[in-house]
This record gives sequence, C-alpha cells and structure tokens, in this order.
Amino acid sequence: MTLTRKPSVEPFHAMDVLAEATRLKAQGRDVISMAVGQPAHPAPRAARQAAARALEHGRLGYTDALGIQSLKQAIAARYARSYGVDVDPSRVAVTTGSSAGFNLAFLQLFNPGDVVAITRPGYPAYRNILSALGLKVLEIPVGPETGHALTPEAIERAEAEAGDRAAGVLIASPANPTGAVHSRDAIARLDAWCADRSVAFISDEIYHGLTWSGEETTALSVSDNAVIINSFSKYFCMTGWRIGWMILPEDLIRPVECLAQSLYISAPELSQIAAEAALSATEEMDAVCRGYQRNRALLGKRLPELGLPFAAPMDGAFYAWVDVSAHTNDSMAFARQMLAEIHVAATPGRDFDPVDGARFMRFSYAGSHDEMETALDRIETWFAKR
Amino acid sequence: MTLTRKPSVEPFHAMDVLAEATRLKAQGRDVISMAVGQPAHPAPRAARQAAARALEHGRLGYTDALGIQSLKQAIAARYARSYGVDVDPSRVAVTTGSSAGFNLAFLQLFNPGDVVAITRPGYPAYRNILSALGLKVLEIPVGPETGHALTPEAIERAEAEAGDRAAGVLIASPANPTGAVHSRDAIARLDAWCADRSVAFISDEIYHGLTWSGEETTALSVSDNAVIINSFSKYFCMTGWRIGWMILPEDLIRPVECLAQSLYISAPELSQIAAEAALSATEEMDAVCRGYQRNRALLGKRLPELGLPFAAPMDGAFYAWVDVSAHTNDSMAFARQMLAEIHVAATPGRDFDPVDGARFMRFSYAGSHDEMETALDRIETWFAKR
Repeated sequence: MTLTRKPSVEPFHAMDVLAEATRLKAQGRDVISMAVGQPAHPAPRAARQAAARALEHGRLGYTDALGIQSLKQAIAARYARSYGVDVDPSRVAVTTGSSAGFNLAFLQLFNPGDVVAITRPGYPAYRNILSALGLKVLEIPVGPETGHALTPEAIERAEAEAGDRAAGVLIASPANPTGAVHSRDAIARLDAWCADRSVAFISDEIYHGLTWSGEETTALSVSDNAVIINSFSKYFCMTGWRIGWMILPEDLIRPVECLAQSLYISAPELSQIAAEAALSATEEMDAVCRGYQRNRALLGKRLPELGLPFAAPMDGAFYAWVDVSAHTNDSMAFARQMLAEIHVAATPGRDFDPVDGARFMRFSYAGSHDEMETALDRIETWFAKR
Repeated sequence: MTLTRKPSVEPFHAMDVLAEATRLKAQGRDVISMAVGQPAHPAPRAARQAAARALEHGRLGYTDALGIQSLKQAIAARYARSYGVDVDPSRVAVTTGSSAGFNLAFLQLFNPGDVVAITRPGYPAYRNILSALGLKVLEIPVGPETGHALTPEAIERAEAEAGDRAAGVLIASPANPTGAVHSRDAIARLDAWCADRSVAFISDEIYHGLTWSGEETTALSVSDNAVIINSFSKYFCMTGWRIGWMILPEDLIRPVECLAQSLYISAPELSQIAAEAALSATEEMDAVCRGYQRNRALLGKRLPELGLPFAAPMDGAFYAWVDVSAHTNDSMAFARQMLAEIHVAATPGRDFDPVDGARFMRFSYAGSHDEMETALDRIETWFAKR
C-alpha cells in the first residue's frame, strides 16, 4: 500500500547544512560553522547554575501553559528597564523558543488562505510555517532604498501586483539575514497602517540587544495591538534550551493560552528556570556583545577584500549578508563545495530569498573570534586556488 | 481599533485545573494534584546526572532537526530489546514531547478539511490540535462492548452517520483516560483496514511500559505504514523536559524533517542528552511502576467504596476513569468545588468526552502513595459532610 503523501514544505537549508556539518564533525573533520545563527558562548553562568540547582532539587514538570509566574514577571520587568514600557506580566506568554511563538501567533490570528506579508530576504521559517499552516505568503522585496525596511507603500505595491490583501504583516528588526534595523518611525508607520486596516501586526524582536547601529525600538512602545515575539536564543545564547516569549494584546491572552495548552502543554521547565536567571546576566552578555562587534569589524574588513561585498548593512544581529556573484552564480552549490572542501559552513541565500538567493550567502559571526579568523583564512587560500 | 479575532480552540481543562492548583499552592494551600498525567517521581537519576554533566561542559545548541544521532540509535535499540522489532535509526524523529509529534504528523499527513477518527473518550489535545489546524474530528464512542478499543466497524458506523470518510485514524494504547489496552489483533485489524483504504494510521504509544493487564503491542510489529508517537514524559517521568519521538515510515522521514526544521528547529539538547541516559534506567523505572501498581490497587478498592465506580478497566496508563453521577450531574463544577474546598485537583470529564463528560472524571494516580491516601481521605470526609 502506498499512501498519497502531500508535498513537504521547503527545507530550511541552514539546518541541512548543519546536519552535513554534524556528519563531517563525526568523521573527525575540523568544521567551522558560520551557517546557523547560534552563539559560540554558552548560556549565562547564572542560568546554568540555576539549572544545576533545579536538577538537584528533583522533579521537573509541566508548568502553567503560558509559563512560570516569576519568569513572566521578570520578562515584564525587563521591558520597563530596557525600554521604559509598562507591560502587565499577564500579557507575557513563555514559549518553546520563538518557533512556538510564530506557530501560536499564526494559528490564532489567521485562517487558512489568509495572506501574510513578510520581507524578502527574510527568515525562511516564516515562509515555511505559514505554508505548512495553509496560509499564503506575500514576499515583499526590500532593499537599500528603504534601508531594507518594510514600508506601507511596498506592501500596497505588492498587494496590487498579487491582487490580494494582507491579513497580517510580520517584520523582524534587527532582521535576519540583512541585519537591517527598522527605525521607530518606520515601525510606528507600519503599526498605524495595520491598525487602520484591521491587519494583524507581528514584530519579531529576537535580535534585540544585538543592535550595533541605529535605534532599537520594541513595537510595544508604539502599539497596543502588535504581537511581540522574542527568545532567549540569541542575546542570551540559549539556542539549545528552546525558550522564548511573546507579549500579547489583552484579547489574545486566553485564546493563545488554550492553543498552547494543547499544542505545547508548556515550555521546558528547566529552560524556564534558567531563562529567569539569565535575565540578570547583563555584564556577561555585554562582554559577549563586544565579541560580536570584534567579529563584525573583522568580517567588515576581510569579506570585501575577498570579493564578497555586503548586500546589507550589518546594523544588527550577527549576520553578514554577502553578494557572492563574483565567485558563483549558484550559492547553493558554492556553499556545498565550501563545506566539503575547506569545512567552512555558511548558508546559501536560497533560504532567505527564493527569487534572488542564488547571488547571496549568509555568514553568521556568532562564533568565536579565532574561528572567524581561521574560516576567513581558509576561504582566502581556497579562493587563491580556484 | 479592534481586530476581528477568530474563536479560540477549546481549553485543555486539565491545564486550567493545573493553573488554579498552582495559584492555590502559591497562596500556601496544601494542594494534591490528581489532575495532570504527571509522575511524582523525577527523571531517572542517570538522566539527571547526564544533564548535570552536559551543563558543566558548556554550550547547548541546536541539534539536527530530527535529533542527536546517538539518541536515535538508542531509541531504535529499545525497539529491538523490548519488542523484538528492527527499526532503522533513520526512522526515528526526536520531538519536543509527543505534542510536537502530533503536530508534525497531522501537518504532514492531512490537508485542511480532512477527517481524522479518534476515540471518545480520548486525549483532548488530539481534538484541539486537529481543530486548530483546520482538520475535522470524527469522534467515535468506545465502550465496554469492545473493551474501549476502536474497531473498523465502529469507524464505518461513524463515517456513515457523519456522511464523511476518514483520512486518518489515531488510537492510543494504553489509552488516556480509560486505561484501555488494544490487543495485538485489534491493532492489526485497524492497520489492515487503514492500509486497504489508504488511510493514515497513527499509534500513540506514550503509555507503553505502563500496562498492568493484557498484552502491550507496538503498531510497528504489525505495520510498516503506521506513524508511531511516543515520549519520555510518562514511563521515564520526564514531563517537564518536553522530549519524545516518532517512528516514521521511510517516505515520511524527509518531509517531517523539513517541517521540523522550521516549526521546532530541534528538541531541547539537554533533554535529548538526558533522554538517552534515561533509556538504560530500567531498574529505577520498574520500581516506579510498582508504585503505580500500589496506587492502582488503592484506588481500585477505595474509589468504588466512595461511590465513584470505574467506567473503564485501568488496564494501563495511570488514570482512573470514574463515573461521578452518584454525586453530581456536572463534573466540571464538581472538580472546581473539590479543588476549592478540599484542595484535591482532578480533571473533569469534559476534557475527554464533549458529549457525556459531565458524568465522568479522571483521577491520575501517578503521584506518591501518601498523596493518594491523603486525597482519598479528604474526599471521604468531604462526601460525609455534603
């Protein structure tokens, strides 16, 4: 018997590169990964200590579906401290990474067939999760003319071309893979445009804390309607812990709680305990950020020298979005070859841009400085031989 | 501005009861929870030790989307050891709890509008996740005449009544909340029926290892097409770790991997490391099971004495599915009152049976023996006063 299977969603190529890198490492190869947006630094010491203490104390169980109360309070307090924005802790939903935040937001806000506007280039999981849920993706090209930011005008242009209307708009600032930072004004304009049309507005703020140039604005400071998605993965170096959060408008709290009860039960308790401790590790995280800035300066100098100019500004996050067209017209093959030949993993542009991705690649500079230097040396030697 | 919000899915009432129990505990009340299917025992010592070692060693990161290779191998080996079934490790998908397994299976196997057959009573998250994904739920009443097992005849009867055809069939054995165990023959008949009609067959085996009466059969031993879903939450006492697995038919491995890459990235690494160690903790788990059997004997004696007769056999899992109609015609109000007045939490039947649930409640006996005794004493005193 063969069942008729429906086609799969697109692969997340960065994860395929990671799998291949893991396989090569298992063979003893000295692989440097610049493929996945994953800090080399471990979770903050305070977070690991809190987790170790919790392990000694015994049972880890289900928590309330939207998270442990003290963690929700600590996250709310961070908004007051970092942005001067008052957030009631009841509006915080602790999630199993930002991945769960997207899934919950999309399921609650949209119905199958609804159109959601995202940027191109952009984080591929947006597109893949939306597709998996039967939602339509309206990819809106962004480029240097708006500083890679999304604007109401660009959305309206894309709507007119597609003959469709967006039910939701999703932005990330700082953005993956471009590093672009939306100004406060750009966010406020988008929010007002969405509010005017009863369009849902989702702001992915996972790279907050990692802004190197320009102003870092939470959509919360200009909006009561925006759904905010964030995570401990990036700034707090806790990728493998799968822990994040949402800030929800009042009327979405209970519906999202009901969805989360059945879809996730709760986020991992140990990760919640560790995350709460992480929130006070400001000094340690500041030191990590100084490391990213050193890496950024290194890549900023050497990548263009290697004929890999930047296609976006590196204003935030820890990615270099690079034009590889001087070396290849197929960044996917190029990425495979680079991994096989010099064991440097980076992500082909196809992940982030289904249209023009063959010209681009994303290099993550969240690794250690030594690794970055070695990777650049290997690329230099490799290019010299090609 | 008010956005038009779509209605939420049904609450998972057991999680609401848990939230209320947490609130009462925070006020210093001595709450005993028999509401959630959560062992009182912590994760196996070996699992906690492995986690502690991993914490010392530093970074926890994203793993391959379908899990760490050695964990996949260890899970496959368990099938050979426990069931005499050969499973290639490539067919194992490590998931963020069985919750992720259901979501991935439903998204990959079905299209919006497809009908999926489940039992009534049954685990509420099936119904809620299916609804959230735009799938139709065909609830099929099961009762003593088939030992609370699902049969092809019952499915066909329900299809005829609904005027619809199932695209998938999902069973759990041992079942939640009934504790019913499907025989090998019952599973083989369902699988053959599904295969004949190109219907997807999903077998939830999360309560395997907790079978007190009858034969425990993995659908893998009779089927190459079944999607198996399992978890470390129940037998291995790792609820809060959010770690489970699927065994996939060959042709579903890559599609599910692509979905998992975007929807989950990967399961928590620390939980994966702990889970691998847990698989060898057989002796410790056997002792825990003897505790459940003592609890089961205790409830088996005292609940009927309290006028709470069993509505199902308690052959497996750690639940008593009890007829409360001698005391109330509204088990939801009854559960709330019991929690408020004597601080004993149990789950109203509405979660498991939207039609007849008002007559039933589920008591979990995964807690400690002392707690079970105290809870029963409180109920006895409470009933005497009512």
